[in-house]
Amino acid sequence: MPVPAIAVCCSGQGTNLQAIIEAVRSRRLRARISVVVSDNPRAVAILRARAARIPTVVIDPRRFSSKEAFDRSLSRIVEASGAKLIVLAGFMRILSGWFVRRYARRILNIHPALLPSFPGCHGARDALRHGVKVTGVTVHLVDSKVDHGPVLLQEPVPVMEGDTEETLLARIHRVEHRLYPRAIQRVLSGRVKVAGRRAFIR
Amino acid sequence: MPVPAIAVCCSGQGTNLQAIIEAVRSRRLRARISVVVSDNPRAVAILRARAARIPTVVIDPRRFSSKEAFDRSLSRIVEASGAKLIVLAGFMRILSGWFVRRYARRILNIHPALLPSFPGCHGARDALRHGVKVTGVTVHLVDSKVDHGPVLLQEPVPVMEGDTEETLLARIHRVEHRLYPRAIQRVLSGRVKVAGRRAFIR
Repeated sequence: MPVPAIAVCCSGQGTNLQAIIEAVRSRRLRARISVVVSDNPRAVAILRARAARIPTVVIDPRRFSSKEAFDRSLSRIVEASGAKLIVLAGFMRILSGWFVRRYARRILNIHPALLPSFPGCHGARDALRHGVKVTGVTVHLVDSKVDHGPVLLQEPVPVMEGDTEETLLARIHRVEHRLYPRAIQRVLSGRVKVAGRRAFIR
Repeated sequence: MPVPAIAVCCSGQGTNLQAIIEAVRSRRLRARISVVVSDNPRAVAILRARAARIPTVVIDPRRFSSKEAFDRSLSRIVEASGAKLIVLAGFMRILSGWFVRRYARRILNIHPALLPSFPGCHGARDALRHGVKVTGVTVHLVDSKVDHGPVLLQEPVPVMEGDTEETLLARIHRVEHRLYPRAIQRVLSGRVKVAGRRAFIR
């Protein structure tokens, strides 16, 4: 049986992409990355993908008149690659309702906090400023609201007294890099069951 | 050296009160419960306190014209008992700004969720409905907003697929009963250091 294909969307460093690449290499993740898409031509993620001989596509948002036009282009790339699942890994764009409905339950995102706490661009910094003692990592299905769709997996991460954003984020990233490949594997091999906001992978 | 006195305020079952009573008995908590206060004459907590020969006071909110008048009465009871710390354990009242300022950093509350997620009266139910995979317990200093003051301790609690509110709450309560006496002990024996929203017990 051929392994399922996934598309990974990145805008930045691509450390989660790297973790996924390594999980595929070591067979912890039985999948093939059919394309890495970036909206940022300078994303380090692009270099990581190239080094792993994965096809890359840069879509420049400035070339599109609307969010949906961008998303239609993204959709064509995903389809052409044969990907069954879209994995957001530091993709700094909000997807349109059209795209999200089209790929309902087939888009995953990872967030550096225990949602619904600390959504947005600075999950670790906001947790630190709020003074929580436990934060964590969330893998969720993407819906049309930011950092909002049904939660698939979460794992707690302790906040230490001396933490800076950097030290906390490093601890969170280690958990992300372990959790995301596992979540992808479970979604690919299992069946995601969603009842209202409650989602489980069987 | 005499052990420090604490006042415990309850409105209901008093299972956290019971955990504190047992921690005092077994010397895990080096404190004396100088009074148990309830705003509800039918609180089971009152019976637990009486069984442990702890002085109890019921303050009937209907006898007071304002929240602050109630709180002044509560303050007199706390002072008369010699308590240095006020421990809210299922106390279903919001304390006035006057009271909270008077006892700044000397009022503790426990909440059945990882604040800032799921504040309010139904922390476990709300977490379950939201579909999180990790919830928990928060011990925090009380300020004038509900479930809002600086966090002292948090501990994660997993949500299981088959959980009902009852099974989840039972798991949360077990953690509460372990965490609250420990938090009280640490506050009594140490120094609470607060910087903005970040609080630590040294």
